[in-house]
Parts: sequence; C-alpha cells; structure tokens
Amino acid sequence: MKKVLFATSALVLSAGFASAEVAVSGDGRMGMIYDGNDVQFSSRARVKFTMTGESDAGLSFGGSFRVDQENYSANEYRSAARGTAGQVWISGTYGKLSMGDVVSASEAAIGDLYEIGYTEGAFAGDIEEISYLTGDGENLDQGANILYEYGIEGFTFFASATDGSDTNLGSISPGANVDDELNASSDDVAYSLAAKYEAGNYNVGLGYGKHGDADEIVLGGEVTYDQFSVKGIYAKYSDRFTGELDAEEFDSTIGLAAAYQADALLVKGFWRQDKFKYDVAGDEKFDSFGIGADYDLGGGATLAGGIIDSDYLDDTVADLGVKFKF
Amino acid sequence: MKKVLFATSALVLSAGFASAEVAVSGDGRMGMIYDGNDVQFSSRARVKFTMTGESDAGLSFGGSFRVDQENYSANEYRSAARGTAGQVWISGTYGKLSMGDVVSASEAAIGDLYEIGYTEGAFAGDIEEISYLTGDGENLDQGANILYEYGIEGFTFFASATDGSDTNLGSISPGANVDDELNASSDDVAYSLAAKYEAGNYNVGLGYGKHGDADEIVLGGEVTYDQFSVKGIYAKYSDRFTGELDAEEFDSTIGLAAAYQADALLVKGFWRQDKFKYDVAGDEKFDSFGIGADYDLGGGATLAGGIIDSDYLDDTVADLGVKFKF
Amino acid sequence: MKKVLFATSALVLSAGFASAEVAVSGDGRMGMIYDGNDVQFSSRARVKFTMTGESDAGLSFGGSFRVDQENYSANEYRSAARGTAGQVWISGTYGKLSMGDVVSASEAAIGDLYEIGYTEGAFAGDIEEISYLTGDGENLDQGANILYEYGIEGFTFFASATDGSDTNLGSISPGANVDDELNASSDDVAYSLAAKYEAGNYNVGLGYGKHGDADEIVLGGEVTYDQFSVKGIYAKYSDRFTGELDAEEFDSTIGLAAAYQADALLVKGFWRQDKFKYDVAGDEKFDSFGIGADYDLGGGATLAGGIIDSDYLDDTVADLGVKFKF
Repeated sequence: MKKVLFATSALVLSAGFASAEVAVSGDGRMGMIYDGNDVQFSSRARVKFTMTGESDAGLSFGGSFRVDQENYSANEYRSAARGTAGQVWISGTYGKLSMGDVVSASEAAIGDLYEIGYTEGAFAGDIEEISYLTGDGENLDQGANILYEYGIEGFTFFASATDGSDTNLGSISPGANVDDELNASSDDVAYSLAAKYEAGNYNVGLGYGKHGDADEIVLGGEVTYDQFSVKGIYAKYSDRFTGELDAEEFDSTIGLAAAYQADALLVKGFWRQDKFKYDVAGDEKFDSFGIGADYDLGGGATLAGGIIDSDYLDDTVADLGVKFKF
Repeated sequence: MKKVLFATSALVLSAGFASAEVAVSGDGRMGMIYDGNDVQFSSRARVKFTMTGESDAGLSFGGSFRVDQENYSANEYRSAARGTAGQVWISGTYGKLSMGDVVSASEAAIGDLYEIGYTEGAFAGDIEEISYLTGDGENLDQGANILYEYGIEGFTFFASATDGSDTNLGSISPGANVDDELNASSDDVAYSLAAKYEAGNYNVGLGYGKHGDADEIVLGGEVTYDQFSVKGIYAKYSDRFTGELDAEEFDSTIGLAAAYQADALLVKGFWRQDKFKYDVAGDEKFDSFGIGADYDLGGGATLAGGIIDSDYLDDTVADLGVKFKF
Repeated sequence: MKKVLFATSALVLSAGFASAEVAVSGDGRMGMIYDGNDVQFSSRARVKFTMTGESDAGLSFGGSFRVDQENYSANEYRSAARGTAGQVWISGTYGKLSMGDVVSASEAAIGDLYEIGYTEGAFAGDIEEISYLTGDGENLDQGANILYEYGIEGFTFFASATDGSDTNLGSISPGANVDDELNASSDDVAYSLAAKYEAGNYNVGLGYGKHGDADEIVLGGEVTYDQFSVKGIYAKYSDRFTGELDAEEFDSTIGLAAAYQADALLVKGFWRQDKFKYDVAGDEKFDSFGIGADYDLGGGATLAGGIIDSDYLDDTVADLGVKFKF
C-alpha cells in the first residue's frame, strides 16, 4: 500500500500540472550479427521520454526524445535540447505541428520497407529505409525542421520544411546529406508535400520533396489481406548528385516488401533496386534482398532473425537475437 | 502475481528507502526566431531529474540535473556525474549546502532581469542575465562549486566558493570566464558573499564577489504592487579585464525590469546598460532593451514572444512560439 | 483523484505491457577530497534506469544503464545504445545471459576489495579494484561482451567472452587495456571462466581469464563472522605486458580487506600489493593501504570518509563527505 502512495507522490511532484506528465519507456536487444566475415555480439539498451499535456482550450502538446538523442556538446547534431534530435508538437482540430528532427512529408505518408532481424535492419545499414531527400536527419544543418499533418475523412495531408538558414554548426554529421556540403545548397529551404489515403485494408501515398536543385517524387501503397501484407514504393529523384563533381547521380529506387502473420510468427521480406547514373561508367543498379522472421514471446520480448544480401555489401549478412520493449 | 512481485522488488531496489525518490519532469518549446536576417525554426525538449530524500534525523538531501547536463566525456564540462553540471544538496535547521554547478551567492540573492520570449532570452544570447563574476558555470575549471544559504526572519544569507584548485580539464568551456585563461587566476579561490531581505511585497539584496584581482559589488531590489513588479540591479566590477592584454575592462552594469500581469497575460520588459573601459578608445556603453509578452494557455503551455534590441547585436531580434512545462 | 487516474494511465502508456516497466533510481555525493596537495570539492548526481519484463513462458529479461553511460557519438565507447555501456539480460531456469559492458567471469565470482570513502575509492583512482584482464570496460573495442551465470546448490558458474572481432571504433578509450593497442591482440577472443561457492558465512571463488598471450588466475574468499568480514584475493598474471616493448610485465596482485560493523558504523580497510617485472630494473612491488568509515544516517544518506596511501601516488590522499541513494 505504501508503495502505491509512493508512486503517486512521485508522479505528482514530477508532473507539476494536473494534465502534464512525463512517461518513461525503454527498449533493448541482444544477439549476434554475422557481418559476412565474423559473428559479432551486438546489444543495446535505450530509454525514451514521452511528455504530454493539454491546454485549457483542449490543445494537445508534447515532446519526446531518447537518452541517446541528447548528445549535447558544442557544434554537434543529435541533441534534443538543441532541437536537432527528438521533437516537440502541438495538436488540435486544425492538425498537428511537430518541430525538431522530424521526418519529411514524403516519409510520413509513405514510410519505409519492412524492417527485419532483431536489430531491425541495422545489421545491414538499414537498407530497408528509403532515402528521402529531406527530413529525418538530412537537413539538421539548418536546425529544427517542421512537419504539419492534417487528416480529413480517409485523407491525411503532410507538409514539411526547413527554415532555409544554415545554423553553421561546425561539422556536418555523418548521416547528413552529402549534397549539403558539396553543393552548398544548405541555405535553400528543403521542403516536402505529401498526401495519403487510407481505406479499410489498403493505403496509398504520394510525396514530393525539394532541396536546392534536387527533387524527389515518391509513390507508395500497402495492402493487407487476411494474414498477408504487401507494400510497394517507387522513388524518382532528379538532379540528386551524391558524389563529388556531380559525376554520380542517384536516379531512382523501386522497393517491394511482404509480410505474413501466423499467430506469434511474423515472416517478412523485401527487395529493392537503386539506380545510379555515372558520367563515365553509365548506369548501374544495386539490388538488395532481405528475409526474416519475428516470433513474439509475449510480455514485450520478440525472438527475431534476418538475412540480407545487397550489392552494396561484399557479403551476405545476417542477425539473430531477442528484442525487448519496456 | 509473480509479475507484481517483480515490479515491487524493482521499486524497492530502485528506491531503496522509504523516503528517497526520483521525480521526472520536463519542458519543451517550439517557435520561430528572427535573428535580424532570417526567420529560423527553433525547438527543444528536455527532461529533468529531481532526487529527494530525508535522513533519520530529519536532514533533507537531494540532487538534480537534466539529461542535457550529463554530457560525459573526458576533459569536458557539463557533466552531472563529474560535478560540473546539476547539483546535490543537504539541508537542515543550520541552512542548506549545495555543491556542483551552483550560482554564486550574489546571483542567489539578486538574480537576473526578467526573461522574455518563448526562448526565455536565448534568442538574444540571454542578455537579461547579469554577468556575475563567480559561479553559474564561470568557475567550473576548478570543479564543483559550493553554495551555502541560511534564512532567519526575513533575511537570507548566502556564501559561495570554489576550492581554488584547478582540475586541469584539458579545454576551457565556451562559457567560461575568459579571465581564467588569460590571467591564470583559476587557482585563486573564487568566492561570493550576499544577503537578501524580503518583506511583504518587496525584497532587496546585496552581493560581493571576488576572483583573483577582480571583484564585484551587486545591489538589487524588487517591488511588487498589485499587478505590477519592478526590479533594479546595479553591478560594479573592479579589475575585471575581459580582453587580451588587459586593454578592455568590464566596469559596470545597470539594469531595470518591469512586468504587468493581467489574468493570463504577462507583459515584461527590461533595459540594461553595460559600461566598458578601453585603454585606447576610452569608455564605451552598451545598451540593451527588450519587451515581450507571455499568454498562459493553461495545462503547462504558454504562448510567448519578445523583441530585443542591443548594442551587442547588429540587428533587432525577436522570437515567437509556445513553451511547455511537463 | 484525477492525479491517481493519470498516474495509472501514465504507467500503462510507458510500460506498454503489463509486466514490463522502467524503474528510475539515482545516487549522489558531496564532500571534499584531499589530493595530497589541495583540498578539492567533489560532487556528483546520477540517475539509473532499470528495465524489467517477463515473457509469457516465464523468462525474465531486462536492461540497465545510467544517464552518464549514454555518451552517444561516433567512434566512442560508453554508450548503452551502442552496447558499450550498461547491459541487457535474459534469465530463466537455464541461467542468466547478459550482454553489454559486463564484468568478466572472474570478477563476477570474486569481485574487488572493499570500497572506502564517500567517493568509494575514486579519490585514489579506485585502487581497491582488482585489475581483471577481461570485461568491465577492458574489451569494449570488440563491442558488447557477454556474461553467463548459472547457479546450482551453493555453486555459481560463470563464463564471459568477447566476440574476437574488433569493431574498429576510431579511438581507444582512456580506460581500455593498453595491451589491446600495443600487442594488437584485440582480434583475439578475450574470455573468462569462474566458479563460486557460497555457504552460510563464507564464500570462495576461482577464476581464469585469457586475452591474446596474456592470462590470469584469480582466487578469492570471504568470511563473515558476527560483525566482522574479511576478504582475500590473489591474482596471478602471465605474459601481461603493460608498457611499451614488453619491458614491463604485470605479474600478480595480493589483496586483503576487512570490515567491522557496529550498528550504524561500518569501519573498512584494505591492503594490496602489486608485483611488476621489468626487463632492466628487475622486480618491483607497489603497496597500497586504505582505511575508512561509513556512518549510516538513514533514509539513503551515509556519512563517509577514507584515507589511502599507495606507492602509485606521491602523497597520502583522503576524502570526507556524504553519499546518497535515491
């Protein structure tokens, strides 16, 4: 009994306001990755804070970030306290506005292919992720990004943008879009517009993104039928140079993912093909395949493994382990 | 049943004692800053831990820091686990003793001018803050600082100090007092003594600080009448050289702030004038003005904006956004 | 009432599953360290997350790390999200398997000498800690380590290992085993095997560790009688070179610790002797002595102080302060 009282007083102190609170959740994973040469142990533990509140007039607001997203130091990305990781939002009848390290409108509408393995694709460099031109860590050299979402009937409309003003952080983060540095386009507003339509057992999305001279058009759709789901994505880029001297241009990606759920077992697979244009060498295509399975152990634990073969990698890679939700 | 036992033992383990606990609170903000040239998005999300306990004899003790104040790495300030951010304290009938990145006695007694805007002055470099000679991040090259507070009747007495021993962290933090490096005075104890008297609707404070050859005398007072409050601060420095070769001396600051509360609306403004002495150029004065308004939306959300004009800045700057408390 | 309801929903939201949860605990300390020349203030505040869950089949799992153990940035150790700090585990009738920055089997079975002072030995560089060859931060250049524990009757068996594959993080952490760099042995599996027997008022442990050419044999035992406890440890290393050019070899450590508990007072002391072999200078022995006392103030607060004299240090050092558990 005393314990219950405890928990209560702690929450009251922490919240400070009747309607505002901070929820603490976490995740973890442990297992082995075969990197093509060696089997390596790989584990992690993370904690996430989700803050929520409601104004007198009924506006919802909140913020969220993980402990590892608060990497505060001068001239560095990935700090929730600097707006370059995590996000804050406000939401009402007019829609939801988020700011921070948000995804682009295109990504919000369409997303990525299915994640496989206990490391959720990390064992192969997250190759299941579509390379969206803007947002999702790409444009944080301009500081916080914004994302606006508005839903009506089965439609959801999305708009995202940077502010077009370089924050001049000393260094470019490893994950930043190389274009930012090479083409000095970071002072251009990077924006994206997208729409999604959801109905019963299917949804379709269309997105457009632009940053400097480069743009993207992304089309996606997903169908669920009984225990099956299938998702397809096509992304076409223009003037998206990824190498030095504009010799290498990222032309397009086509991707397909499928999943089958049978009780606690979920089998997933994907294929994608990226097309690049080279000044000298002509066109080149990179194929990637992945297949994996998740087995729900209950209580937040899932046994999972995956195999990925990609033209980007020298070898076929695989992982096997357990992932946890707390 | 077993689950409950689990949860229980976890709490017992974590809390360890009936009276000790960790409260988790947070804050966030989102909006736009006009930096004189561009409008920039600016957001942040933060989480704070407040730990409290009580000994058998009735001594209170605790500690607090934010996630962004734990930036652990070799040779760096701003780590609660190293005593260079956040603080711990112990408190009883004899007063309260705090250690860590504490404010100086002068600052504890007098404080700063009123913060304006949703970024609480950050959009103009926190120009509402008085430049106290010691504490508040200034002397962390000597490791943890201490602050002692004792209250009797309407009076509160404050004393703060460093230990006079450089911890030799490799680099000097961006916010550190330049004197520390230039005058090699960091091996001198930096200390401060202050007193504050509070009565009904007013309070006055007087503080003295010393570090190496430099010292400060700070005088402040605040009056609240109905919905109005007014605060004035005068700080006079001696031998406080801020440039190289002792050519630039920070002489004094005079500051005035006023606020008016009308229901959910709070209007605030401040003016300050800093006087510098130069070897060659003679004296120079820097004026700064700010005005802003907060509108309480309830539930922890506040709509706020501010405009600041300062001789330190090339342009007038402004911000407008929402700030949250969780 | 509303608050209680809220608290409930908060827990439900954060946990996500009935049996999964994140417990938040903390610690702190404040006091003074005499480093042989100067008296320095030293404080810290830390928060720890302990995540626990249980699968449908009754497997326990969890993870834990402190905020200061999440120092995420490229090419750096000490990040729970990268598996180089904190740990995750899964546990059932078959034993417990942990992964991350775990201790070695030897250390799990035998441990260290008694910690003294309010900084728990940190004021003298944690000289009470036995220098285990593997685990406990030593082999994190190979990423996450594993530790397996299995108990039956009074016996507990331990096995730990690295994966034998360098993760090629750019830099070697300050605490990393120097051998890793000098002898390029980091691609060798570092492993350890140990057993412990506990009965009534005593326990004994035996451990073996190996990394590259170096190995260790560690023997330890502890007896508790009334208010007295005594612990002894002997560690013998082979081919454990600690200097350049294999000119300095760490040969062995013998250590003894004793404690006496009288109500709230706990008096502790230790002595250790480390033997090194030098090519030119012959053998050399380094002695270290420490004595200290803890006084339990109740509620999680302990007054503690210690004095340590070591051949590794130029001067006798001491600390005195208060430590807190929240």
